[in-house]
Amino acid sequence: MTLPTPLTGVVPPVCTPLTPDREVDVPSLIRLVDHLVNGGVDGLFVLGSSSEAAYLTDRHRRLVVETVTAHVGGSVPVLAGAIDMTTPRVLDHVEYVTAAGADAIVVTAPFYTRTHPAEIARHYRLIAARSSVPVFAYDLPVAVHTKLDPELVLELAAEGVLAGLKDSSGDLGGFRAVVTGARARPDITGFSVLTGSELFVDSALALGAAGAVPGLANVDPEGYVRLDRLCRAGDGERARAEQERLCALYGMVGAGDPARMGGSSSALGAFKAALFLRGVIACAATAEPQVPLSEEEVERVGKHLAAAGLL
Amino acid sequence: MTLPTPLTGVVPPVCTPLTPDREVDVPSLIRLVDHLVNGGVDGLFVLGSSSEAAYLTDRHRRLVVETVTAHVGGSVPVLAGAIDMTTPRVLDHVEYVTAAGADAIVVTAPFYTRTHPAEIARHYRLIAARSSVPVFAYDLPVAVHTKLDPELVLELAAEGVLAGLKDSSGDLGGFRAVVTGARARPDITGFSVLTGSELFVDSALALGAAGAVPGLANVDPEGYVRLDRLCRAGDGERARAEQERLCALYGMVGAGDPARMGGSSSALGAFKAALFLRGVIACAATAEPQVPLSEEEVERVGKHLAAAGLL
Amino acid sequence: MTLPTPLTGVVPPVCTPLTPDREVDVPSLIRLVDHLVNGGVDGLFVLGSSSEAAYLTDRHRRLVVETVTAHVGGSVPVLAGAIDMTTPRVLDHVEYVTAAGADAIVVTAPFYTRTHPAEIARHYRLIAARSSVPVFAYDLPVAVHTKLDPELVLELAAEGVLAGLKDSSGDLGGFRAVVTGARARPDITGFSVLTGSELFVDSALALGAAGAVPGLANVDPEGYVRLDRLCRAGDGERARAEQERLCALYGMVGAGDPARMGGSSSALGAFKAALFLRGVIACAATAEPQVPLSEEEVERVGKHLAAAGLL
Amino acid sequence: MTLPTPLTGVVPPVCTPLTPDREVDVPSLIRLVDHLVNGGVDGLFVLGSSSEAAYLTDRHRRLVVETVTAHVGGSVPVLAGAIDMTTPRVLDHVEYVTAAGADAIVVTAPFYTRTHPAEIARHYRLIAARSSVPVFAYDLPVAVHTKLDPELVLELAAEGVLAGLKDSSGDLGGFRAVVTGARARPDITGFSVLTGSELFVDSALALGAAGAVPGLANVDPEGYVRLDRLCRAGDGERARAEQERLCALYGMVGAGDPARMGGSSSALGAFKAALFLRGVIACAATAEPQVPLSEEEVERVGKHLAAAGLL
Repeated sequence: MTLPTPLTGVVPPVCTPLTPDREVDVPSLIRLVDHLVNGGVDGLFVLGSSSEAAYLTDRHRRLVVETVTAHVGGSVPVLAGAIDMTTPRVLDHVEYVTAAGADAIVVTAPFYTRTHPAEIARHYRLIAARSSVPVFAYDLPVAVHTKLDPELVLELAAEGVLAGLKDSSGDLGGFRAVVTGARARPDITGFSVLTGSELFVDSALALGAAGAVPGLANVDPEGYVRLDRLCRAGDGERARAEQERLCALYGMVGAGDPARMGGSSSALGAFKAALFLRGVIACAATAEPQVPLSEEEVERVGKHLAAAGLL
Repeated sequence: MTLPTPLTGVVPPVCTPLTPDREVDVPSLIRLVDHLVNGGVDGLFVLGSSSEAAYLTDRHRRLVVETVTAHVGGSVPVLAGAIDMTTPRVLDHVEYVTAAGADAIVVTAPFYTRTHPAEIARHYRLIAARSSVPVFAYDLPVAVHTKLDPELVLELAAEGVLAGLKDSSGDLGGFRAVVTGARARPDITGFSVLTGSELFVDSALALGAAGAVPGLANVDPEGYVRLDRLCRAGDGERARAEQERLCALYGMVGAGDPARMGGSSSALGAFKAALFLRGVIACAATAEPQVPLSEEEVERVGKHLAAAGLL
Repeated sequence: MTLPTPLTGVVPPVCTPLTPDREVDVPSLIRLVDHLVNGGVDGLFVLGSSSEAAYLTDRHRRLVVETVTAHVGGSVPVLAGAIDMTTPRVLDHVEYVTAAGADAIVVTAPFYTRTHPAEIARHYRLIAARSSVPVFAYDLPVAVHTKLDPELVLELAAEGVLAGLKDSSGDLGGFRAVVTGARARPDITGFSVLTGSELFVDSALALGAAGAVPGLANVDPEGYVRLDRLCRAGDGERARAEQERLCALYGMVGAGDPARMGGSSSALGAFKAALFLRGVIACAATAEPQVPLSEEEVERVGKHLAAAGLL
Repeated sequence: MTLPTPLTGVVPPVCTPLTPDREVDVPSLIRLVDHLVNGGVDGLFVLGSSSEAAYLTDRHRRLVVETVTAHVGGSVPVLAGAIDMTTPRVLDHVEYVTAAGADAIVVTAPFYTRTHPAEIARHYRLIAARSSVPVFAYDLPVAVHTKLDPELVLELAAEGVLAGLKDSSGDLGGFRAVVTGARARPDITGFSVLTGSELFVDSALALGAAGAVPGLANVDPEGYVRLDRLCRAGDGERARAEQERLCALYGMVGAGDPARMGGSSSALGAFKAALFLRGVIACAATAEPQVPLSEEEVERVGKHLAAAGLL
């Protein structure tokens, strides 16, 4: 399908269900996609951070994108991450995800290397020149250790290099600069500014964002869709209540003991445990070398689901 | 060949010469390897950071390791980087570099993800269990954004998970803790602690390090080999003079204007410009999206070479 | 006066006008206070970061707080920063600012030292035990290099140690956790959560914040007061327009050339240049070792004022 | 006394003994100074980080410097820290420490504020212009969150602004650049480059450093003096053995449980516990809000002392 211009609404970063021996669990992935589409989402983002893209081999990644694009058959747009360190490696991912039918690609700044704004611009220009589908910038300083500069994003938007931004920086001031800049500049049209936050989708939409890409929407797609619709309807009070319910639910990401595991293990482990407890996926395993949640930690996830009315 | 236990001496991280259209320049790579081996180095490390591994596609990486192992034919040990974000992706690289005949692999902690010491340990244990050749840990906080803990390194050495450490952290105190710990513990034998620094190889060897992996040894292998031999002969005064000559030469990494480019572009661009000026490689191009050095910046590199007696 | 519980509305961090030889310019300070109070603000915060507290000697700080408390005479509450590295040094500042009549003190976590959440808790408990006025926590990771944990803030609020939070972390998710936590917990009452951001006061108020402490309110107090009143009236559309006007005005903080000066010099220099251009203060000098804005940079500030209708 | 040019040898940063109610324990301080001077040290550095300067009020600081200068009466040079956020505040400290007879002052770059190399240069120039005694730069990125640039240090040395550098950055490459630069440049004479590391004093001296300022020398001054003399005598092997004994002793800084306290509490707590166990000071208390070591943690310190032959 052609990507809506701009892409709006709720576009969950789709978790990647794994079997106990860490292969992609295709039937579970299809059930998860159905769970999301039936929940009313406006698009799907595969191979992002919440998809454990950093932990998936190229073979796994290819299988994920092929499975999802084939299954949805154009009913909703599919964005695919092309997450790697530098331009040449990203371009290899772009090739197979677009061959599989992804409607857009999502790309971070270079990482692992010591980079510079001029190199980031060069990176996106080269990728856009070689990609057959639109390019979204992915701002994720916690992983990439560089923050995308709002002025640079707007410049690349005006050039037609970027079609949108997924902002997971947590920096609402910079996010707003992109939103209002894109609206104000006559040389920018159809640019889609999406927040990657779970915790202030209402704020982002109120200031003019096009939509949201919240990892927690895997667990509760109806909640985020409801939130989106309430915001668009201008019902601030009910939107805030829904957002606060989702913030409480998000507390599940702290289920894992920080003395035993890192933040990815805990957050992604919690999302998958929740999907397992809700009956969506067959196995809650996360990829290596993440530490699995203990039984007690999974129980904590269950309590968050119950408190949110999801069990 | 079987890797010496411990591996000692000078083991340059081999630059990857590229053609103007950014393919691997195989004839130049072979000339570079000859330049290093003829310079007296004790091993070669391909696909490390100075090799622009982060910028090479899997196809490029495979070609590099196959070219080098075939060319040296066991005359010196070849270590190969398996640089990627997490365990499953690293294991894919391990497969082809060992199939190509690498004598050891060099692996960082997970990056891009939010990680934890327990996950780092799990990462190395899983990789060692699956690798047919010894595993070196690669400590490079500037890229990985995690520092390997000396106690963890020693624990993994004692378990037989790690055969050595390439330490590019710049933290000489932690480096020394590994060197003296490995010497003191009866459950650790043949563990090879190598410094990745260009600037204090003499200090590292004096406190007991096994060897060095200096990127600048691409440019002046004889200099680092001479330094290594002077240190082993206990000739501190001449060692220090040689080290200081190399420190001055290392100033070339600042050739690129920091207003125009990042540290990788400048340092790797300078190494390649120097190799080109010395007639070793045919083209000084660095991989995308790095910014090329200007003519004036290349002249600065030339001045460093001249001052060090290398032009 | 007794501090309102909770303190709400706009509470500007008052700039500290200096003479050309870097003494406190008392007449200008009094004019600035009048400018703010006449602008409708709900309180004043002296000796914060925008007040250049880090650059003021104890003698200067004492003069500032005495001048302001004497001049307002209880007509609006005066909060005073007690900014220093650790508990004993902070307590020395607490003594003279409370003697001068400050209605509350504002205190960061320890800085310069390597600290720990348990030490941060101990710090605030000791200070509250010794202070005769309420204590606000000041969350400013860009200066303090530690982020206050929302759970810890709520725990200290429940204990009665903290009366409020000034959050300049930029992390709206964590801010929201404090706002909703303080509202939900029956053991917390009258806790005042204030945003230190200039850029999303509308968002902060919409999610339930008590008020704002924006440095830019020195330049345009009427604007922020209007924004606050529009938010409280539930007029989201006009609030957003006002906020966006203020965001554009805030662009002045980038007036200084980053090749010549740091962020403090540029931002504080711009605020003072604007106050000078608006005729509020007699001299735009900032404290040493900040670099002064050039004439051309001051002109840029003037253009921001003109565009916002303030010149 | 006049400061030797350059200052060389072992210059411990003197701990500040406190009474149980956190007043300066003057008799203990005098005993500690005697312990150091009798141990053969070449100078004393009061009011540095190991002195808990960040935790001492101005009244405490003044008492410390007056006590020490009066007691040593010129028998060894006394350097005094003037640790504060910015130029005007540092100058206030400079005044009383020089009035008390300090022979040199030790000053960091500005902290808490967002600074810039041009502002750091301005800071040191203003301080040197106002100080009656020589100025040492104190490079401590873990506290100051800025690293001093070697080129800037050399420039300020050539101008006569700086008389020396205390480098606690852990970056031996940058340290070496200052040492060799100061030796090579004809416009720099008598510049004293001192390492703040406990762990590689032998390496620093071997590459040409003037001396060392190790916090651990409070506990074992004889050890560091012996190390210094062995290095100067060119006895590398025995120097290395002595350094390794001191590295093992330094392990005491990890005595405190990191789940309960930060790095300052643990390291400074261990030094003071060791001084108490060795009978030098009357009470091991550290300043607020540091967490005290438990009995069991103090026992760990005792084991380190015993293993090093100091109990």
